[in-house]
Amino acid sequence: MNRRAIAAITGTVLIAVLLVAGAFQGLGAEEAAALLTQAQAVFKPLPQDMGTPEFPTTPAPVALGRALFFDPRWTVEGNVSCATCHQPALYGTDALAKSIGVQHRTHPRHAPTVLNAALNFTQHWWGDRKNAEDQAMQALVGVFSSGQPDYAAVIARIKAIEGYTPLFQQAFPGEAEPITAENIGKAIGAYERTLTTPAPFDAFLRGEATALPPMARAGLQRFMSRGCVACHNGVGIGGQMFQKFGVVEEYWKATGSQEIDKGRFGLTKDPADLYVFKVPSLRNVAMTPPYFHDGSVATLDEAVKVMARVQLGSTLTDDEIREIVAFLRSLTGPLPSSFATAPALPPGATRSGETLN
Amino acid sequence: MNRRAIAAITGTVLIAVLLVAGAFQGLGAEEAAALLTQAQAVFKPLPQDMGTPEFPTTPAPVALGRALFFDPRWTVEGNVSCATCHQPALYGTDALAKSIGVQHRTHPRHAPTVLNAALNFTQHWWGDRKNAEDQAMQALVGVFSSGQPDYAAVIARIKAIEGYTPLFQQAFPGEAEPITAENIGKAIGAYERTLTTPAPFDAFLRGEATALPPMARAGLQRFMSRGCVACHNGVGIGGQMFQKFGVVEEYWKATGSQEIDKGRFGLTKDPADLYVFKVPSLRNVAMTPPYFHDGSVATLDEAVKVMARVQLGSTLTDDEIREIVAFLRSLTGPLPSSFATAPALPPGATRSGETLN
Repeated sequence: MNRRAIAAITGTVLIAVLLVAGAFQGLGAEEAAALLTQAQAVFKPLPQDMGTPEFPTTPAPVALGRALFFDPRWTVEGNVSCATCHQPALYGTDALAKSIGVQHRTHPRHAPTVLNAALNFTQHWWGDRKNAEDQAMQALVGVFSSGQPDYAAVIARIKAIEGYTPLFQQAFPGEAEPITAENIGKAIGAYERTLTTPAPFDAFLRGEATALPPMARAGLQRFMSRGCVACHNGVGIGGQMFQKFGVVEEYWKATGSQEIDKGRFGLTKDPADLYVFKVPSLRNVAMTPPYFHDGSVATLDEAVKVMARVQLGSTLTDDEIREIVAFLRSLTGPLPSSFATAPALPPGATRSGETLN
Repeated sequence: MNRRAIAAITGTVLIAVLLVAGAFQGLGAEEAAALLTQAQAVFKPLPQDMGTPEFPTTPAPVALGRALFFDPRWTVEGNVSCATCHQPALYGTDALAKSIGVQHRTHPRHAPTVLNAALNFTQHWWGDRKNAEDQAMQALVGVFSSGQPDYAAVIARIKAIEGYTPLFQQAFPGEAEPITAENIGKAIGAYERTLTTPAPFDAFLRGEATALPPMARAGLQRFMSRGCVACHNGVGIGGQMFQKFGVVEEYWKATGSQEIDKGRFGLTKDPADLYVFKVPSLRNVAMTPPYFHDGSVATLDEAVKVMARVQLGSTLTDDEIREIVAFLRSLTGPLPSSFATAPALPPGATRSGETLN
């Protein structure tokens, strides 16, 4: 055989292999390309990190923020840290319907993961925190997250741990008194802005069509055609708007919620805000049960079913649910190592001057 | 100059440098060698891990034990794990005088670090736990650590997380029902037996005389000559015997303890056991304030002073304390990566079938 013949045979074999592969994956090459184009119009892959010109991810504040995130000593009894409700082992959640915070107080709403959370257009279910920095700063004196009466009490605890002084000086050079509530918020925010989890879906969005297994691609198709993307779109697959929970049916009838949360109405007293919550990001959703603002639903299958019912008035078949869940699983990325790995904190028993329990 | 002359000069310079280095380090070569020999007779370097023929550190049980250690879902309200009181960021402690456990219950005694703890001849301050496995198994139903009424409740929670089944099957192959309290204890124990922290002092004990800075070597000398080694010896620098706290003076007068703990007397009712506790290991002691069974002393300087006073009837000078503390700092090793880094746990909201808080 001459070279041309070999090339022709090789080419034919290659096309055959590709066709078989396409068939095996449930979509023809054209359909796969169309799905990718469609998805790229609706979603965006994760950036390297979530820093902005206003809130950059400079190494020194990030390192300081990471220490403060894992440190329980500044909360009222010294036993609750950011990592209590946002545990690395549980993908930045606590797997509870509602977190148990300081002094055994139950938080009014479910703790979402901190991973990729800086992407959200606003923070907390009610949207009453502007951004990661604002959330962190207010948490310093939060009734559930901290229990401290004021910022001064938090700052006194941190100052009592000698090892923090150089960390603040490096993070905020040139400031005479760098240990401030605002700087703590900035540092924790800077750290959180580094916590991205690139997932198979991001590889897909960047053009790698086979990064999603066939069932996930079928699920993506349904996720778009069924209308889920009306709210769950963009880089976070959610997290970019408010929406009423229960557009076509009262949510608590589907979720079995024991209490009715009025959503942003609680904040604004505007009837238009009744049962309105921030649409959550679906990144890592398979790793972060239970679901919804009250953690009332334990499994992802059930959560998908409930959403279709109360938001879209649709009843999904079991196959459709399986496919959509397969797509949602493709939103799981590995834990960032700076989150999975706890820093060794500067030592110090800060409560020694206070009542020892 | 010929080669011989150069060699002679080089040799002289080398000896001069060594002499200067020796003087700089505060000890002549002979003295340094004598100190090493003396130390080797009293202490032992850390082994690779703390497995035994009866309790080996086989990879599959270790991996399972690591997951269970970080998992809060099996405790009564799903919010407390082994890692709550033994936090990686705080060197396996919680930096509290007394831990706050399930349902906001305060533990009666201070939580020691879990690092190197499997070396201890017995577990808990009162010595009422045989070994790491026994401690872990009893903690499954501990009033402070778990709050679960019985092993069945713990096992039901673990069985509800699908991802645990294969981990147990791999860890305990051939067992029809591997999810048992005994196996959980074995797995957590196996994991804990891997948590060693080789420190500069271990390098010293292996013959590397300069692994300890001069002040630490001076402190080691004092630690031995002052009699601290009577109790703090062996591979753990403690952890191998019981001893009365307050040999020459009632301990609470020196520590300012607010409650008097009667020690093993509480267990045995034998007057000989009044105020008798397990001697703690001093490995990583600089990273694990506060100190003593009740966490009544916040700083290492003060703890050393108190010990000299109530155990040995000695008053140490400030210089002696500084030296001994420098030695104690040489007992700090880096966090093991399998401890610093949390595993990604199998997902599951196990409390969904129960009352959601």
